[in-house]
Amino acid sequence: MDDFFYPRSIAVIGASRESGKVGHSVLKNLIEANFQGEIVPINPNADEVLGLKAYSKVKKVDLAIVVVPASIVPSVLEDSARVGIKASMIISAGFRESGPQGAVLETQIRDIAKRHGIRIVGPNCLGIISTGANMNASFASEYPSKGNISLISQSGAICTSFLDWAADESLGFDKLVSVGNKADVAEAELLEYIAHDPSTDVVALYVEGIDKGREFMRVAKEVSRMTPLVVLKAGRTDMGAKAASSHTGALAGSDAAYEAAFKQSGIIRVNSIDELFDATKAFSRCPIPKNPGMAIITNAGGLGVLASDAAVEYKVPLANFTKETIIALQGALTRESNIYNPVDILGDAKPQRYGDTLKTVLADQNVGLVIVLLTPQAMTEPEETAGLLNKLSLKASKPILTSFLGGKELAKTRDKLKQGKTANFTSPETAVRAASNLIRFREIATAEATESIQIRGAGQKRGALLQIQQVQAEGRTSLTEEEGMNVLRAYDIVTPKATIVTSRDKVVRAAREIGYPVVLKVNSTDISHKTDVGGVITGISTDKAARNAFDQIYANINKRMPQTLIEGITVQEMVQGVEVIIGVTRDPQFGPFVTFGLGGVYVEVLRDVSHRLAPITLAEAKKMISEVKSYPILLGARGRKALDINAIARTIVCVSRISQDFKEIQEIEINPLVVQETGCIAVDALVVVETRDNSLNQSGGGQLER
Amino acid sequence: MDDFFYPRSIAVIGASRESGKVGHSVLKNLIEANFQGEIVPINPNADEVLGLKAYSKVKKVDLAIVVVPASIVPSVLEDSARVGIKASMIISAGFRESGPQGAVLETQIRDIAKRHGIRIVGPNCLGIISTGANMNASFASEYPSKGNISLISQSGAICTSFLDWAADESLGFDKLVSVGNKADVAEAELLEYIAHDPSTDVVALYVEGIDKGREFMRVAKEVSRMTPLVVLKAGRTDMGAKAASSHTGALAGSDAAYEAAFKQSGIIRVNSIDELFDATKAFSRCPIPKNPGMAIITNAGGLGVLASDAAVEYKVPLANFTKETIIALQGALTRESNIYNPVDILGDAKPQRYGDTLKTVLADQNVGLVIVLLTPQAMTEPEETAGLLNKLSLKASKPILTSFLGGKELAKTRDKLKQGKTANFTSPETAVRAASNLIRFREIATAEATESIQIRGAGQKRGALLQIQQVQAEGRTSLTEEEGMNVLRAYDIVTPKATIVTSRDKVVRAAREIGYPVVLKVNSTDISHKTDVGGVITGISTDKAARNAFDQIYANINKRMPQTLIEGITVQEMVQGVEVIIGVTRDPQFGPFVTFGLGGVYVEVLRDVSHRLAPITLAEAKKMISEVKSYPILLGARGRKALDINAIARTIVCVSRISQDFKEIQEIEINPLVVQETGCIAVDALVVVETRDNSLNQSGGGQLER
Repeated sequence: MDDFFYPRSIAVIGASRESGKVGHSVLKNLIEANFQGEIVPINPNADEVLGLKAYSKVKKVDLAIVVVPASIVPSVLEDSARVGIKASMIISAGFRESGPQGAVLETQIRDIAKRHGIRIVGPNCLGIISTGANMNASFASEYPSKGNISLISQSGAICTSFLDWAADESLGFDKLVSVGNKADVAEAELLEYIAHDPSTDVVALYVEGIDKGREFMRVAKEVSRMTPLVVLKAGRTDMGAKAASSHTGALAGSDAAYEAAFKQSGIIRVNSIDELFDATKAFSRCPIPKNPGMAIITNAGGLGVLASDAAVEYKVPLANFTKETIIALQGALTRESNIYNPVDILGDAKPQRYGDTLKTVLADQNVGLVIVLLTPQAMTEPEETAGLLNKLSLKASKPILTSFLGGKELAKTRDKLKQGKTANFTSPETAVRAASNLIRFREIATAEATESIQIRGAGQKRGALLQIQQVQAEGRTSLTEEEGMNVLRAYDIVTPKATIVTSRDKVVRAAREIGYPVVLKVNSTDISHKTDVGGVITGISTDKAARNAFDQIYANINKRMPQTLIEGITVQEMVQGVEVIIGVTRDPQFGPFVTFGLGGVYVEVLRDVSHRLAPITLAEAKKMISEVKSYPILLGARGRKALDINAIARTIVCVSRISQDFKEIQEIEINPLVVQETGCIAVDALVVVETRDNSLNQSGGGQLER
Repeated sequence: MDDFFYPRSIAVIGASRESGKVGHSVLKNLIEANFQGEIVPINPNADEVLGLKAYSKVKKVDLAIVVVPASIVPSVLEDSARVGIKASMIISAGFRESGPQGAVLETQIRDIAKRHGIRIVGPNCLGIISTGANMNASFASEYPSKGNISLISQSGAICTSFLDWAADESLGFDKLVSVGNKADVAEAELLEYIAHDPSTDVVALYVEGIDKGREFMRVAKEVSRMTPLVVLKAGRTDMGAKAASSHTGALAGSDAAYEAAFKQSGIIRVNSIDELFDATKAFSRCPIPKNPGMAIITNAGGLGVLASDAAVEYKVPLANFTKETIIALQGALTRESNIYNPVDILGDAKPQRYGDTLKTVLADQNVGLVIVLLTPQAMTEPEETAGLLNKLSLKASKPILTSFLGGKELAKTRDKLKQGKTANFTSPETAVRAASNLIRFREIATAEATESIQIRGAGQKRGALLQIQQVQAEGRTSLTEEEGMNVLRAYDIVTPKATIVTSRDKVVRAAREIGYPVVLKVNSTDISHKTDVGGVITGISTDKAARNAFDQIYANINKRMPQTLIEGITVQEMVQGVEVIIGVTRDPQFGPFVTFGLGGVYVEVLRDVSHRLAPITLAEAKKMISEVKSYPILLGARGRKALDINAIARTIVCVSRISQDFKEIQEIEINPLVVQETGCIAVDALVVVETRDNSLNQSGGGQLER
């Protein structure tokens, strides 16, 4: 990676003498940013480009920048490999994003790179900026000042907007990477490198799709406690995702999987480009708050109300001032002021009053950060107030966010604010939103490591595997209920007491052993929807009913599916309690994706579910359970007793483990898992596996992953 | 009202020679705005103020501006009345907002005004601006250019911020009113006057609390189809409302009631001050779209995705282009472009390509409005593009919203955009949000008048009234079930078949007549929670069970409440179906406030409810029902048959009518209303009335309202 960000020598392959061409802009930018290493223009038709000696053939450098037409990029890469170049950034477009022909070219360059051990950034990208190396290896027209922001973006256009916005805000950059089509180097690797660099205080990411989801999560989890990662993911909604596909051809994963991935790896997800800008600014300019209590100071009551509304919306707690603060404010402010939070210092507040109040509030131990609001009223002195805030902000160890609300008259003042360490926003609401992001990072950085649990499964995994392989060998894609239950049991999940009987005589004994009431279910690999063919009878409470039910099931099946082989009848404990569902599917980017919800209308009608990506810790599982809106039902709403939430959480962990252990499993659904005051029981389970052929291709013949 | 906005003569009572004083600023502002009528400074200690002859005593003018200390405002008002002044704007503070003493003063001035027929704006306000009269009757330092925006604000500080923001955006004002404490003139009256003025194209409102809620709704309903009303209501959340009370002492109504009021009267509610600015700008600069289809044109795919995401979030449909448009775009754009919506015209798009694409898209009949996005890339010519868009926008009859995304480099371009009729926003997301507000107004303006239904109630109202008055006369506050049912039946609401029996012998005949199964319930004015004392037995299917139940209820009551007088036993039809709840409470500002939800967990745990203020039309009631998340259950989710939604809607209308007809009724709750495939039945009803004394004070002794 050092070759991309701190190279000692750079070749520009395709350097052009013609102004307006990308090959010209890139070289010009490199020179103008004052890069101190060697710059080598490669151009077979020129002796000199922009005052530098040009070469007709590529020579050994740390970093090659490729700006030639797509069709000759493969041969350029081969040439580069020959002279020993290890890092190549391909700006040229005309690859995967342009259609099938381009996709072929992209596969070619990926193969060449792999063969020769060349690393590639791009193709189809804007370039790389690394201010620490005085390097503008891009065709962006703006070169930023040095600073603590790094940006990783899947869109070059977003880079240029970001740069222009940052210039206006006097914010500086450490590194900027336009990742383009990500033929080789993708977000995960860049994140690992950049977030560890002490010159970066915040990493902003714009992504449309992440290809190596698991790898990304691993890295993000590792660095997100150290450096704030602010991510804008475009293609959030189905309609958005459609546009995403036609744009870069990236396969956008389901947004729920991204949401889970970001949440689980400590990423601060933002919802719009404004919020990306605002959060980046806050992290760039402010310290991290030590506690979440927010204080608000305003010269207009209305703004205080708007900020309080936003505090509720963004879940930022208002600080309760200490007695000392209250007394100090009482002494300093007039009777008409509001000395509680939000502090209304009234419309005639001059800079001094702003300053005194801010000092008092900053000293309060319950205050983690302060929002200062100002409207330009008759007596207000915005510029002087800004000057005073700047001074205080340079000494303060707590974030000071401001909203000086106005337009024309405040233009100069807003410029002045950029000289301090406050961060100014267009409204009270956006200031509070930025505050919520600062607080979110504090939570991520201080979160305690979560518990893990022991699962007996390891020892029995082999048995479960054999079961799955047998099903595959028979060409089936789903396990019978009994087979599914075997897999669950191997992982410590409780299933109902059950016995399979094959004759009428044994039904009663089995039922008595289990204890009435019981359920009778047909057992047959030919039948996948037992209920539909009269293969299930519930609520059996007497010996007579048990015998009748046995006969009835045989009669039903013989009538409706005459050719069916009945392997027996399962006599099962009838379990009562609240029904929940645990399901796992496979997300193409992130792998096993676990869904939880209460059964029946809650899942089917209200779509009241929560999600996580496996693996899931016990603590995460509990959080996941608490996220559904129907959670109070499990807690014992409406006079009922509380149910065993720990048992559900444990089951979620076990299911997530199964889905990780067996790549062959495409889907698991426990529906229902019946939850009781103590414990929970998986009453029915659907397990879908991939067909043997796919399995062989994808996971090496169903071998254990670990 | 004309006296406030188009006076021919103005007195400034408390005009001051001392610069920095409000009495000085106001006079200076009047003069500088070039007011053409007579200006009369009133100051007993000066012959002349700011070059105008000053008078020691007030003389007859159209409008008196009062800037003297609060304590002498009452005498000033008396003086004004004596010389025949009819309109007075009180800028002075020190009234209700400052505590109990101020509140007394405010009551005084209100009484004086009433007695003499003087209208008052304020006190505690910034003033009034009316550009049509060249009048700056405020102490705002900025006087806006003439334009089509009017602002009504409960916060003077928000006015100054708004003015400053508008100046920066080159937006002009028609009228601006800072309403202050609203001792007399409030939003409703101003809205009625201003929205009818053809010089106003959009009214922006900032409110913290509305006192005369019903009046406000009536006016808003009337004008909102004609002029867009954009409202920011502060104190949305509980925490915000707390700040609101300490600010102006306004009693903030429950936000759900405001939400319903705004929805029902065609108001466009916004959620932040940014959105208030943005929506106002869109309405000020753009025509109203004729259909909701949105087209997006972008030079960066990523921005198109972000805009599409926002379109889903803000429920704006993307337009499906006609065949002609597709063919035209195919011809004009390169193969790499995306010609479907969002249209990606690629990073090298020059002004011409922007212009051609925009012309094509504007001509498409499916397109109601267009969003044009631009990032400053290497080949982009932002300023020239802006110029071309300006030209096209001046001819276009469809809204063109833009987001030119950047900072420093785009500053000049953004200024240039202000010369056309486009509206520019800081991001794709905020542009789409503004588009959604334009579309919302189109919906409001074109909504069809809704159906009304006949209720038999009118004829039987007197009977219901007598019933209520009897309960009040007995000193009770809630009706028995039977009394409540009588009221419901008077309004055409179906209740279960029921008979009251007083002897064991008659139970069986009653049950047979009604038809098994039945429910038996104790009847006693002493018992309010029948179930708790064993006074209800359900599921009775045989004669024997009926007799036993009769005995059991007597035994239960005798045991648990020995002193109770049992008036009889109600034998009631047992009704089965899905349970819903309809409730009415009284909101202090808006009156009868109706809540709907499905019974049980849906209301109690999930809080899945919808709200409206009475009166409710049948169409509104249906909408209300469809707004709950559990609505699919009524539609027949999970294989069930659809239930009679019309019957529920009809019941909602009837209940809302009851709550309007009887001010004595504080609360009604039908819980449950059992809904079947045909019809619905109110199985239990709680009706709470106010005690007679309150009733006498508040509603004139329970007389019929109409």
